[in-house]
Amino acid sequence: MAGRHFEDFVQGMKSTLGPIAVTEPVLIEFARKYDPQPIHVDPVAAGKGPFGGLIASGWHTASLVMRVLVDSYLPRDAQLASPGIDELRWLRPVRPGDSLGVTVTVLEARRSQSKPDRGLVRTGIEAVNQNGDIVMSLIAMNLFRCRREAE
Amino acid sequence: MAGRHFEDFVQGMKSTLGPIAVTEPVLIEFARKYDPQPIHVDPVAAGKGPFGGLIASGWHTASLVMRVLVDSYLPRDAQLASPGIDELRWLRPVRPGDSLGVTVTVLEARRSQSKPDRGLVRTGIEAVNQNGDIVMSLIAMNLFRCRREAE
Repeated sequence: MAGRHFEDFVQGMKSTLGPIAVTEPVLIEFARKYDPQPIHVDPVAAGKGPFGGLIASGWHTASLVMRVLVDSYLPRDAQLASPGIDELRWLRPVRPGDSLGVTVTVLEARRSQSKPDRGLVRTGIEAVNQNGDIVMSLIAMNLFRCRREAE
Repeated sequence: MAGRHFEDFVQGMKSTLGPIAVTEPVLIEFARKYDPQPIHVDPVAAGKGPFGGLIASGWHTASLVMRVLVDSYLPRDAQLASPGIDELRWLRPVRPGDSLGVTVTVLEARRSQSKPDRGLVRTGIEAVNQNGDIVMSLIAMNLFRCRREAE
């Protein structure tokens, strides 16, 4: 989002993003490159497996959610590199044909003590399928530039 | 790895995998699809940014490491779905031309109490660049089938 800065992220703020359409060709294309296990790339083998069909690589689900965050949530010009992610959980399978919504909640927003031009935001993120099931959750850490330096 | 089961993962076991060659076309291709921030897709804009050039999306680095794990570490037939990841950290930038090694350490391996056909393995994973710098670290949880059920 153009114009957003650290000050625009306030504890308790909730947003809903998406939907993300999960298609079989895209699911298989990602998995062939990055996670070529039969359950992600081979519909016949996956059909005989524990989920009765193809499921998305967990890294693909995370990457699809990242795309939505870039397109419609993260600051376009004030985003610094992310230090990392905590408690990434793949809770239910993501399947071809699924439609995922993404809910985003600001858990904590605090200015850096040492660098007054930025703040750290911790964000709870959940991906939810068309049946209302949470398929993935994670806590993201992001550093955003401040609109105005602390005085 | 064909034939590997839960019993083959023992606390303290270390492995070194890779190398992974990071190339600019692949870095940009991933980022255009999943993380199209200027620092990942626009060499000119990234050159003026804090890292002085393009860096890989953190999700791309994680996905590249996953590919190496699938190719040369995880059990081919005994791997069940992963519950998730803890403490994923992007510690230093990954740049075009980098060559990443992956070090893998079994932190904990315990049989399931409720399902005697499987066990949970917690694994510390580090990606290290050609200068010896750790660029990413994470703790993975995996469920693997046992070769023999607990008695």
